[in-house]
Amino acid sequence: MTKSSADLHQPLVARRMERVASFLAMDVLSAAAAKERRGDSVIHMEVGQPSAPAPRAAREAAKAALDLGRIGYTEALGMSALRERIARHYKDTYGVSIAPERVVVTTGSSAGFVLAFLSLFDPGQRVAITAPGYPAYRNILEALGIEPVTIPLTKADGWIMTARAIEKAHAEKPLHGILAMSPANPSGTMIGRKALGELGETCRRLGLWFVSDEIYHGLTYGEAASTALASDDDAVVINSFSKYYCMTGWRIGWIVVPERLVRPIERLAQNLYISPPYLSQVAALAAFDATEELEAVKAAYARNRAYLLEELPKIGIAEMHPVDGAFYIYADIARFTNDSIGFSKRMLEEAGVAATPGLDFDPIEGSHYLRLSFAGSENDCRETVARLKGWLR
Amino acid sequence: MTKSSADLHQPLVARRMERVASFLAMDVLSAAAAKERRGDSVIHMEVGQPSAPAPRAAREAAKAALDLGRIGYTEALGMSALRERIARHYKDTYGVSIAPERVVVTTGSSAGFVLAFLSLFDPGQRVAITAPGYPAYRNILEALGIEPVTIPLTKADGWIMTARAIEKAHAEKPLHGILAMSPANPSGTMIGRKALGELGETCRRLGLWFVSDEIYHGLTYGEAASTALASDDDAVVINSFSKYYCMTGWRIGWIVVPERLVRPIERLAQNLYISPPYLSQVAALAAFDATEELEAVKAAYARNRAYLLEELPKIGIAEMHPVDGAFYIYADIARFTNDSIGFSKRMLEEAGVAATPGLDFDPIEGSHYLRLSFAGSENDCRETVARLKGWLR
Repeated sequence: MTKSSADLHQPLVARRMERVASFLAMDVLSAAAAKERRGDSVIHMEVGQPSAPAPRAAREAAKAALDLGRIGYTEALGMSALRERIARHYKDTYGVSIAPERVVVTTGSSAGFVLAFLSLFDPGQRVAITAPGYPAYRNILEALGIEPVTIPLTKADGWIMTARAIEKAHAEKPLHGILAMSPANPSGTMIGRKALGELGETCRRLGLWFVSDEIYHGLTYGEAASTALASDDDAVVINSFSKYYCMTGWRIGWIVVPERLVRPIERLAQNLYISPPYLSQVAALAAFDATEELEAVKAAYARNRAYLLEELPKIGIAEMHPVDGAFYIYADIARFTNDSIGFSKRMLEEAGVAATPGLDFDPIEGSHYLRLSFAGSENDCRETVARLKGWLR
Repeated sequence: MTKSSADLHQPLVARRMERVASFLAMDVLSAAAAKERRGDSVIHMEVGQPSAPAPRAAREAAKAALDLGRIGYTEALGMSALRERIARHYKDTYGVSIAPERVVVTTGSSAGFVLAFLSLFDPGQRVAITAPGYPAYRNILEALGIEPVTIPLTKADGWIMTARAIEKAHAEKPLHGILAMSPANPSGTMIGRKALGELGETCRRLGLWFVSDEIYHGLTYGEAASTALASDDDAVVINSFSKYYCMTGWRIGWIVVPERLVRPIERLAQNLYISPPYLSQVAALAAFDATEELEAVKAAYARNRAYLLEELPKIGIAEMHPVDGAFYIYADIARFTNDSIGFSKRMLEEAGVAATPGLDFDPIEGSHYLRLSFAGSENDCRETVARLKGWLR
């Protein structure tokens, strides 16, 4: 067979792929790595993961499991001991009673989204997300044929998704669900208890699914975060061990779902994942006993946050979303640029500071935003300010 | 808000869930566990995973990584050292050259299927699978809105998917791709080099995607398995460390894709998985150096296989698909029953032997088939024959 006749018949990549974007953050990562290979120094403010290792107790638990030998499949919904421990966490942390059967252990929050979206939404149904927001929401929804509906956040609304905005969007064209995140990525902004209750109430009244991404819970610097489950037992909550528990590369998280979703999600999980990784489940269970170590990590974030909120305005980065939680600063850099991609490229190349362009999180306003992660060391933060000071001038 | 008005507005589970079935094997697992909790003895012939632990070298590599501390995200397509090692494996094992860039490390073959199906097929497109076959194929395709087209296997065709059957199905109503598995689950039957080449040639001629599930490669008892890549560079190959490498609960596998699919799949992987589990990648890399240990495990399967092929016919289980590879016997039990679910329940309850009803793998003919896994111990196999001998009479 000649090359041309082979080409003639080559099947095409699926059309749905046209609607799935890559993470610009990943391109920044590659460019930063290339710069480092050339021997240059790079401060990594682009990475959305803790620089601290997983808690010692978690790592020791994994090692003990390795000594015991067989690392087999678990039940598709996760080990019962871990599901029970997560249920207890809701009682201890929020005073909310959750039956362990409603807890589904997932292969990171990524799997939580796929399981939730597939079981809640049919192709063509509409789900409200925010801009700015976590880019994978839009991309996973698009990959599954579900329509993301963008709710632009405004300063007047305190940069959060409000019940009023949902009502308005639903009145224009019916939604089937909403996806809220608090504290949020990229901004760190939190939806307070009252506003979260209003979102839940609105969803119940309009018959919408309420998906609440609570992956940054535990990482707050003032008021503690509220769970959607406190006011709405029918909410679908997504969480993970990646952020507060410093367990990104373990790919382990959980969702809490209403009773009527447990069996459908079990069927999906059996087929799409078989089971979450065994060692990660064992380690996650132990991570609940590492509070002292994890609070020390959080205290370091708090110091980094305070430092940056003090120093960044002095060098011209003054407009930012409220940083109530998580470990990001989402800064409006309109006074410097309306091309956040070009800006972040030059910043990396010339100042040696890697950050994520806002266009990853918001296809429109993101052109004049930049996300800086302060999950790294105190020294990284000081060096960032020192490097940017001269460069921005 | 009263309960009744809340119920009125409760959103529904997605309709697509009606088309996603659970694994009957999982129900057998639960029933077997319940029987054991009552103090009864159960021989586990239902489980599709090796009873041997992961190779020592793999476990040691994971422990060393745990000592080093941080277990972070990797690139979405996997660690480059592992991608290179997998590419080398194709050279060493099959004499086929694959650029490491075409290797995508996945969170088990489960993720491989999701990534392949989403990037190859749009909703409504038709993909040929076999009956009997791995049940997750059908269920994942259905969950993603892709139409599975069943090709019933026949004795005349040697119980394999043939090029002729694909041509016939395509002529009736156009297909967009085919999914072949060799050695197969549940039967262990292999598609020989020539037949595999014909499948590839037919796909090229008709412009179909050729997805080849090679998860049981390495576990063959006569002729070695051929990779679809040997004759078709455009094939999409799915593989995993779960079977030959005894690493089920680690959730780690790989796919090999044509160059033009690498970027689309990278975008999907970033959004749907972020990265495969870190420890599992480190361990998988080390597993390539554990050939001696893994060949000993395989030799035990071979002894179990020989024993069962000798003894089962003596107790009336005589009709079975060819067991060229994998670790299953797929037996026609029409002389005993046409209700494989009821039969396997009674077999578990009365004889204490757990096996998977054929209906998991074939919604029609599966009513008179049973799958027995011989991945357990030699003693399990002997005890199975001893228990069934009396019971079947």
